[in-house]
Amino acid sequence: MGGLRAMQFTTNVQLLLDGLNTVTRALSARPTKQILEGVHLSAAGEHVKLTCSDGNLSIEMSILADVKEEGTAVLPGRLFTELSRKLPGGEVTIRVGENHAASIRCLSSKSNLAGMNPTDYPEMARVAEGTTVRIPQNKLKEMISRVVFAIATEDNRQILTGCLLEVEPTEARLVALDGFRLAIQKAVMPFELPGGKENVRVVIPGRVLNEMSKVLGDTDEYCTLVFDQSRMTASFGTTTLSTVLLTGEYIDYRKILPASFRTTALADRVGVQNAIDRASLMAREGKNNLIRMSFSGDTLAISSNAELGDVLEELETELTGDPIEIAFNAKYITDVIRNITDEKLCMRFNSNVSPCVIAPQEGEDYLYLILPVRVFT
Amino acid sequence: MGGLRAMQFTTNVQLLLDGLNTVTRALSARPTKQILEGVHLSAAGEHVKLTCSDGNLSIEMSILADVKEEGTAVLPGRLFTELSRKLPGGEVTIRVGENHAASIRCLSSKSNLAGMNPTDYPEMARVAEGTTVRIPQNKLKEMISRVVFAIATEDNRQILTGCLLEVEPTEARLVALDGFRLAIQKAVMPFELPGGKENVRVVIPGRVLNEMSKVLGDTDEYCTLVFDQSRMTASFGTTTLSTVLLTGEYIDYRKILPASFRTTALADRVGVQNAIDRASLMAREGKNNLIRMSFSGDTLAISSNAELGDVLEELETELTGDPIEIAFNAKYITDVIRNITDEKLCMRFNSNVSPCVIAPQEGEDYLYLILPVRVFT
Repeated sequence: MGGLRAMQFTTNVQLLLDGLNTVTRALSARPTKQILEGVHLSAAGEHVKLTCSDGNLSIEMSILADVKEEGTAVLPGRLFTELSRKLPGGEVTIRVGENHAASIRCLSSKSNLAGMNPTDYPEMARVAEGTTVRIPQNKLKEMISRVVFAIATEDNRQILTGCLLEVEPTEARLVALDGFRLAIQKAVMPFELPGGKENVRVVIPGRVLNEMSKVLGDTDEYCTLVFDQSRMTASFGTTTLSTVLLTGEYIDYRKILPASFRTTALADRVGVQNAIDRASLMAREGKNNLIRMSFSGDTLAISSNAELGDVLEELETELTGDPIEIAFNAKYITDVIRNITDEKLCMRFNSNVSPCVIAPQEGEDYLYLILPVRVFT
Repeated sequence: MGGLRAMQFTTNVQLLLDGLNTVTRALSARPTKQILEGVHLSAAGEHVKLTCSDGNLSIEMSILADVKEEGTAVLPGRLFTELSRKLPGGEVTIRVGENHAASIRCLSSKSNLAGMNPTDYPEMARVAEGTTVRIPQNKLKEMISRVVFAIATEDNRQILTGCLLEVEPTEARLVALDGFRLAIQKAVMPFELPGGKENVRVVIPGRVLNEMSKVLGDTDEYCTLVFDQSRMTASFGTTTLSTVLLTGEYIDYRKILPASFRTTALADRVGVQNAIDRASLMAREGKNNLIRMSFSGDTLAISSNAELGDVLEELETELTGDPIEIAFNAKYITDVIRNITDEKLCMRFNSNVSPCVIAPQEGEDYLYLILPVRVFT
């Protein structure tokens, strides 16, 4: 990414800002090197390529520009973005001289920004050849949102701070689990795996999936993922995201999934959500953020209590199998309900000490499992 | 506020919530007594009166209710408000028993909240007789917003953490100053002062004015202020706010106001606001958050600089008198521009070491004064 000549281009402020808003998602709050505070600009042909990186994750985006002098530059990422956000609008002309300083002109606004030497900017590794998976952007975005909240946040189980992506010839699966709950989202479609392989498994860091879900478009145009065992590159639209993958063996989640259930309960999802919302208020006041659910006959009672008081909510339910009383950490159940759009919430149980599974009433695309808290004897 | 009988009433959830949202503004984040964490409820006739207080400021509001049993209660303020916010809506029935516990029923939601003994709740002092001032609520709200940001926040100048309210037979003035800037907003209308008095001056705590501006309505119905030398009571709609006043001599602000100016400059207010917004970005990066303004001929140049770069903005100006170069703390000028709605910003100067006055082009209702920072020799 070298080049020390002066660089000059003119582009639209909104285009520049869209690009900066996308790539600066890769900036770290505490960069390991000063140069990584910068956004790398590379002007050539009819485009300017913007790149930010934290050393592990990098995001690039090309924007259309009228390039007067081809070249490269590194400008302070956050300040340049804030300045661009406040520009009057219309066209902006950016010129970077040999001293790395940039002049930014937009109508009667003139700014100068001290830049850094672009030859110091690290080269980004990219996966050129490897397993290729193509998923529509909106589908991938939805898959991520359905599982990403279940990723472990504790550092002492580093592999669980990532999401397992498992690809087979007929479906792909995103899996997240933190020891208390597990979320799986499938995409059933044909995938071409490299000759002879039955499945490919990689573990993508949670932060990468979070940032990715924010820059993926709400479009059914494809995102192309290419990965080998250590890196992944995702390309969509004019954006390219590259990241290192987590290494190590992911937990064999299949062993955790119950094969059958003794009880199935259906209830209005919005009703349950509101009831849990109110019960969570009191659960938060209590010691362990605990919510109790009691399914019996056609009634679901949701309750919580603390020294300051208690909440009891009653809803209708359709129960198949044995009545059950079970308790959960309020956060684990709130997280999942927020991400379900079905009209009915479907919960399946075996006992109040074995995992509860929440899944759509029909179909097997999504599955969420929570371990209950033992409070009933 | 005694009474230990059971209390019971039914009201509309939205009415209850509006009341709680208003009165809980008086709750302190760190109450001096546990009972002051509570909201006091008093049900009588066709109303329930809600009251919160931090010991100095108290806010009361009456809401319509179907009262089954008259009585009083104190419930945990924040939790009761959060719970009310999440109730399904429609009617809510609240019953408080002799053990001070409240049962709250709304559709299929049932909560119990531990309450406190209402006989422990302090009686609120109210000014029954004193100087009375009536100002339309929307006018008073606007007056507050025009000056309140100039109140001193440092505790070592306690009198300046309040706003001076000065009432004369033909106008009322709100004055705030912090040693670096001064804001005055007038309301020209007849006021009836107690026999023989030419003016009345009280100093209202800044926090009280901030909370007041949030609960005053956007209506031209009157707010009635009654004050003596130590307390003020404000009544508007079904709300009553009572507060202690600050004691001590307020600074004689008249001595600070320049009698004449050598330079007057007019510029497009939105243009200046945007230019200062961009210049502030770089000023923040610099050491003392400094913005320079240079008025010369028909040009106003606004600039700032830091190690990382500089910003230069040019605008048109209409200048009367001598050209001037002057520098300000960016915050002090941003604060005022945000609160001005005139199309043109009018600034008046004598020299770059004497106060600059910002006021409407016509009229004398508003005045804002800033001390410049000495940077020019």
